[in-house]
Amino acid sequence: MATKFISERNIKFLLYEVFDMESLTQYKYYREHNRKTFDMVLKAAIKLAKDLLWPVFEEMDRNQPQLVNGEVKVHPSVRKMMKEFGAGGWITSRVPFDLDGEQLPHLMADVCDFIFQAANYSANAYAGLTAGAAHLIESFGSKELYDTYVPNMYAGKWQGTMALTEPEAGSSLADITTMAEPTDEGHYLIKGQKIFISAGDHDGVENIVHLMLAKIHGAPPGVKGISLFVVPKKRIDQDGKLVPNDVVASGVYHKLGYRGCPIVQLSLGDKNDCRGWLVGEPHNGLRYMFQMMNEARIGVGMGATSMATAAYYASLDYAKTRRQGRRVSQKDPTLPPIPIIEHADIKRMLLFQRAVVEGSLSIIMQCSKYVDLMKVLPEEKKEKYHLLLEILTPVAKSYPSEMGVHSISQGLQCLGGSGYCDDYPLEQYFRDSRIHPIHEGTTGIQAMDLLGRKVIMQNGQAFMLYAAELQEAISKAKKFQELEDATRQLGQALNRLEKVTKHLLELAQSKGPEHFLADATLYLEFFGIVAIAWQWLLQGIAIQKASNNDAKKKDLNFYHGKMCALRYFFGYELPKTLGLAERLLNGDGLTVDMTTEFFND
Amino acid sequence: MATKFISERNIKFLLYEVFDMESLTQYKYYREHNRKTFDMVLKAAIKLAKDLLWPVFEEMDRNQPQLVNGEVKVHPSVRKMMKEFGAGGWITSRVPFDLDGEQLPHLMADVCDFIFQAANYSANAYAGLTAGAAHLIESFGSKELYDTYVPNMYAGKWQGTMALTEPEAGSSLADITTMAEPTDEGHYLIKGQKIFISAGDHDGVENIVHLMLAKIHGAPPGVKGISLFVVPKKRIDQDGKLVPNDVVASGVYHKLGYRGCPIVQLSLGDKNDCRGWLVGEPHNGLRYMFQMMNEARIGVGMGATSMATAAYYASLDYAKTRRQGRRVSQKDPTLPPIPIIEHADIKRMLLFQRAVVEGSLSIIMQCSKYVDLMKVLPEEKKEKYHLLLEILTPVAKSYPSEMGVHSISQGLQCLGGSGYCDDYPLEQYFRDSRIHPIHEGTTGIQAMDLLGRKVIMQNGQAFMLYAAELQEAISKAKKFQELEDATRQLGQALNRLEKVTKHLLELAQSKGPEHFLADATLYLEFFGIVAIAWQWLLQGIAIQKASNNDAKKKDLNFYHGKMCALRYFFGYELPKTLGLAERLLNGDGLTVDMTTEFFND
Repeated sequence: MATKFISERNIKFLLYEVFDMESLTQYKYYREHNRKTFDMVLKAAIKLAKDLLWPVFEEMDRNQPQLVNGEVKVHPSVRKMMKEFGAGGWITSRVPFDLDGEQLPHLMADVCDFIFQAANYSANAYAGLTAGAAHLIESFGSKELYDTYVPNMYAGKWQGTMALTEPEAGSSLADITTMAEPTDEGHYLIKGQKIFISAGDHDGVENIVHLMLAKIHGAPPGVKGISLFVVPKKRIDQDGKLVPNDVVASGVYHKLGYRGCPIVQLSLGDKNDCRGWLVGEPHNGLRYMFQMMNEARIGVGMGATSMATAAYYASLDYAKTRRQGRRVSQKDPTLPPIPIIEHADIKRMLLFQRAVVEGSLSIIMQCSKYVDLMKVLPEEKKEKYHLLLEILTPVAKSYPSEMGVHSISQGLQCLGGSGYCDDYPLEQYFRDSRIHPIHEGTTGIQAMDLLGRKVIMQNGQAFMLYAAELQEAISKAKKFQELEDATRQLGQALNRLEKVTKHLLELAQSKGPEHFLADATLYLEFFGIVAIAWQWLLQGIAIQKASNNDAKKKDLNFYHGKMCALRYFFGYELPKTLGLAERLLNGDGLTVDMTTEFFND
Repeated sequence: MATKFISERNIKFLLYEVFDMESLTQYKYYREHNRKTFDMVLKAAIKLAKDLLWPVFEEMDRNQPQLVNGEVKVHPSVRKMMKEFGAGGWITSRVPFDLDGEQLPHLMADVCDFIFQAANYSANAYAGLTAGAAHLIESFGSKELYDTYVPNMYAGKWQGTMALTEPEAGSSLADITTMAEPTDEGHYLIKGQKIFISAGDHDGVENIVHLMLAKIHGAPPGVKGISLFVVPKKRIDQDGKLVPNDVVASGVYHKLGYRGCPIVQLSLGDKNDCRGWLVGEPHNGLRYMFQMMNEARIGVGMGATSMATAAYYASLDYAKTRRQGRRVSQKDPTLPPIPIIEHADIKRMLLFQRAVVEGSLSIIMQCSKYVDLMKVLPEEKKEKYHLLLEILTPVAKSYPSEMGVHSISQGLQCLGGSGYCDDYPLEQYFRDSRIHPIHEGTTGIQAMDLLGRKVIMQNGQAFMLYAAELQEAISKAKKFQELEDATRQLGQALNRLEKVTKHLLELAQSKGPEHFLADATLYLEFFGIVAIAWQWLLQGIAIQKASNNDAKKKDLNFYHGKMCALRYFFGYELPKTLGLAERLLNGDGLTVDMTTEFFND
């Protein structure tokens, strides 16, 4: 099995050369950090990933969670990991110093998650979910809720979850039916069913803390009647002991992949003794939950990127060592076979993967940088980054998720028949990655969010800010002759995107929302390709700057290789927007008008 | 679980309305058949698929083959199936009457295979491989070989295989090292290793007959030194008893999918007692094997189509019954949720699947029709269909294989989280289908075959005949106003294909074979999309003819639905050729020039 799952060189390139993380330390909030501490954190994250997560990547897949006597049994290393993640401060990497956190820039903390996920996505899910759930209580819960739950979560002793989905409410959260009955004792009595809850029950921690959506009796219908509750698996009784809270793990799903982490079905209040505590105000639950959901969506994009990254290095390793065939121009069968990496078609598949994964990592880190800027900048400057983050979230979730599956599939293809067998990890990545276009809002849902909400929000303000970011990159890139083609192509693609967007907005006026949103998924794909081209141009600028500044000799291959990936993206991927534009500009309402009976026979 | 895995209506539409199978009965070779016998065969095939294959589709996946004491144990139903397939004449459906076959048109026999594969691809592989291997002996082997092996294979008692791949020779068959030493007793002594042999050993039959490539000592290097042998697992001794032939199943692969059929590693001649019998002339083995390989390649395309077809019906079934959300234009949460098939994005995903699977089935049946015409037409008219078949084989293998995976992935997506769990069959189809772009020549190999061999063969004769077929369809379609857009678009796409082809041929002249073939895989993708558009136009013509001839009322929904799928293909899929053309016309040799060290870091 290949032993490389990330490129430390590429991570440093993005952190320091493209996104200039060091510049964040000029602001008060991050001034305790410097390049040296960043490098130490990076080193520690890589070591932890290599020592703790990577060695059990396959094992956790082959021994998937089981429901035994009402409790989900997971791989024994989960308990160890949660402890180490808690003790090492990895769950609190983004938490302020005054709450005993590490107060790292999001750029830094997100990159650490990337490293952990690349080593073992399922394993990192436990800590990631816990961090997000604790952050939700920290942001919107009372001090009492904070004190009761968060310290144990940050210590890795208690698991956090997000409990949204129900049997009849997946993409449509408006239809949840889990009920919360107020009592005189400060808590609510919860009753209902939840499904598809990641890490929803397991024996690697002492307790599970569900951040759960439910409706208070008498609440308004739809999303405006949803409240957020803390519902622990075990609650603390008057003696301070943990006692069961009538939360039952009623099933664990058998999944295609992502098998290191259980997805659980929960039954709440079968004995009318399930207590939940309201977070914040009633009926505001979905708004609160969106904090965690938005973090989780970008987290899914990162997870997708990380798997595809590890898969890329596994296929690269194979391509370098496997010998087969000869060059097309040299077919003499008496010559020895060449490493398959020398075949153009293999290089194409490797460059495709590299262009996708390094472009995806870049767009996610762009979002991280925006989060950091929102933290450090004065109030009046925050709105810009808030809006950019809003419009990029569905893209940062979906592009890596959709393209990650394709990227891994090409990685698998590089190995031929071996890629289809479990002697190599590609087949596992292929299975694991297929969850990403589904969880935390399917691609279709992200598309509706992008076109139906984000593009039109505040009179198109977010879209205009986004276009301005691309224009700024184009202006900067114009200085470099090596980027001439790419710069021109990105300009054309942006024009095409603006034209398509304008056309769709007119369609909304003339034909209404159904026609407007019918091909939102294609629009998201289009938007995503342009966004990644932008990120590649930003990387191109950094490469050219370094090359012009006498890059170290040992870095030349790296920069040259990255330029090849950039050329690949502009040469092979960006032209896909031509066909998408053709369709989006000529929609005929086919999928709106067609009725169900035409699917008969 | 959904119970529909094919559309009988669509099969009859293609057989009778598009490809006019009845017209074949005017020729002597097929004159014993008629519409009535065809319909009976179809009915029997559907019954067999439903009764025997479909019920164990999941079970064969969950209980994959195991190597126990040197023999591969498979699901007990395999033995029963092989018997039924033998007794029912399904292995001999294409065999002439005078060899005790059914002498069915290939169109008919191939459609039966489609039905079996849609019900259970792995299960059908046993009989399919046996038919192909027996046909190879029938075509090129001696009468003695025929009498010794073929009757038992046709009866379903003995399994046939194609044994090509070796540890160091996968895509590059030139490098096989399995050796054949002549003896004075008429047989050769075989020594070597074979890997990835489908149905290469199992306990569902009495014997396994390998059609194996090996090199005779002293043979010329490369593909010109390959010979074809029959190497049975058990040979017949002087007393007529089956005795071991020193063929050892040394391993069985654990695969992503396609688990109902074992893929086996074989060790030959460890005790210097493995006997093989030469088929035909020495050193002509690869040429002979190409008969089976070409059949198998189209068979893989059919298999990919069949899986994606069954997956389509499973996702359609879910989409019709699952309720979630409301129309975009009607968000009132007090209204009941609608079946998800009423959402435009779900209809888009269903139409995508339908456009892919019904287009793929059509291109395969087009090939079947050509095979039939080659059988019945006088010698001087055969060459046309031979050349058309040559140029379409890599396309008929690859388009369904590549797009089948995408189609199934969209089917899975329709189910959301449920699609990722094994309560529904989509995750299995997703795993199963990923083999198709790999086995029987990867997509990259097919691409080199199409552009590097078939397009240029006989001074471009095959390509010209192909273009003429498309032009003929365009002429016919011009009569129908409903097909106006599609007809125009196919004409434009054909022009684009001709332009790209011309450009690449010039590149071959100016820059040599490496540049010529560097993006062959993109060319294959381009070619494939145009070919499927052609098939949809042929279907469109049949639909319009039927509609103009007062189609039966119960058929109107069917025809209307098919027209929607046609519109989908031309509206959403064909425009992808724009981006592909852009790339193919502007190749910069990136993947030829880039060297390995740029992949470091």
